[in-house]
Amino acid sequence: MSTQPIIFYDIPSTAPGCAWSPNTWKIRYAFNLKGLPYKTTWIEYPDIADLCKSIGAEPTMIRKDGSPYYSLPVIKDPNTGAVVSDSARIADYLDATYPNLPKLMPAGTETLQRGFRVAAESATDPLTPYVIPAVAHILHPRSKEYFVRTREERFGKKLEDVVPTGEAHDVAWKALEAGYAKINGWTTPGSPFVMGDTVSYADLVIAAELQWCLKAFGANSDSWKGMMAWHEGRWARLISDLQRYEGPNEDVHA
Amino acid sequence: MSTQPIIFYDIPSTAPGCAWSPNTWKIRYAFNLKGLPYKTTWIEYPDIADLCKSIGAEPTMIRKDGSPYYSLPVIKDPNTGAVVSDSARIADYLDATYPNLPKLMPAGTETLQRGFRVAAESATDPLTPYVIPAVAHILHPRSKEYFVRTREERFGKKLEDVVPTGEAHDVAWKALEAGYAKINGWTTPGSPFVMGDTVSYADLVIAAELQWCLKAFGANSDSWKGMMAWHEGRWARLISDLQRYEGPNEDVHA
Repeated sequence: MSTQPIIFYDIPSTAPGCAWSPNTWKIRYAFNLKGLPYKTTWIEYPDIADLCKSIGAEPTMIRKDGSPYYSLPVIKDPNTGAVVSDSARIADYLDATYPNLPKLMPAGTETLQRGFRVAAESATDPLTPYVIPAVAHILHPRSKEYFVRTREERFGKKLEDVVPTGEAHDVAWKALEAGYAKINGWTTPGSPFVMGDTVSYADLVIAAELQWCLKAFGANSDSWKGMMAWHEGRWARLISDLQRYEGPNEDVHA
Repeated sequence: MSTQPIIFYDIPSTAPGCAWSPNTWKIRYAFNLKGLPYKTTWIEYPDIADLCKSIGAEPTMIRKDGSPYYSLPVIKDPNTGAVVSDSARIADYLDATYPNLPKLMPAGTETLQRGFRVAAESATDPLTPYVIPAVAHILHPRSKEYFVRTREERFGKKLEDVVPTGEAHDVAWKALEAGYAKINGWTTPGSPFVMGDTVSYADLVIAAELQWCLKAFGANSDSWKGMMAWHEGRWARLISDLQRYEGPNEDVHA
């Protein structure tokens, strides 16, 4: 019996390839790594909560005031009827539901992979004040209005004032490079991927954050070019090695 | 050819079992997990730098002022002549040098294990203001004087003022429990160890921090008993499951 395409809800942008969100990129890579058929449905930010309620997708967080917070990725799998939200839970679902396809988390490494994700995302945390303001410029108008308003509430200031400048930039950008150096230091020299020659969830985590930078900064920006030169081009090679898992262009364009 | 005992430099205390440092505990567990013969040489804090210089052990850090910082564990392996410092480098050395013994980091998981360590130690970071002041009480006089002086310099206040009290304690202790909940959330229900039924470096990282708490707080303290009740006794089971790798008592006593 052939597998029907899984419906994959993602947030569009004006950047080349359309997809930009690091959390949805992990799952986009995952579908292509597994060779699972999927079909993207593009959802603008202000429509995410209504979509989730209408298809029965669980919130990914409960806010301090007790209200549910909905976010993408969400998938709807017509093969099982399952609706799953949260990239980590979707990764678990795909590994468990399609056990004969390549695993995101090879048996026995699941806990290590989950911990690694936290360590890697924490090491690259200095990205936040650079990428969030840059993302605002690649969203469609309705999403942009929503994104800027909610992120300015979160930061407590205008997004243009969030980006480090002058000396603060020198310090923050060095901290970011040091974060990537930390991840580089965990790896075994000569191994293209975290687990050696096998692509796993940990690689998708790193690559998804790189996609976020690529889409937000642009391929010709000094920021992106600088990052691609770090650690003897290691991150450029990772993006290039995973290009075959980026998915078909006809799907990627909104 | 039989393996000669590896000399293992550790810091003594007055606590039951003598060993208390989380970084040296990782290696103590590692020797016993591998079944490698070792002999502990106990070194008081003020003697660590001189010891390292005399045996050619590298510093584990360079301070901001450019001066070398020496710390334990350090091992000296008479089978190869190697002197290795830093628990992470010692773990790599033991896996590489004795490839036929059980691996701390099973092949392909090395990078994941290193990242997991950072994530786990960061999740339990709220331990610091509790354990550091408590450690002062279990050190021998010369080490205690050195430890209290250098840690008070680092914190910029008296160690007794570092311990959270009152409302600050409620917040900090909840943050600590949340940190352990985070690690618990990464694990697969029903798996005794991070990799399932196989003990690996990741388990030693968690257990070594628990040993630090056990020795500093004492087995009868409310803090220790509280931790052992968290997450359905998961951490108590881990310590108990790894008891067979704590090593012989005749070695543990200074």
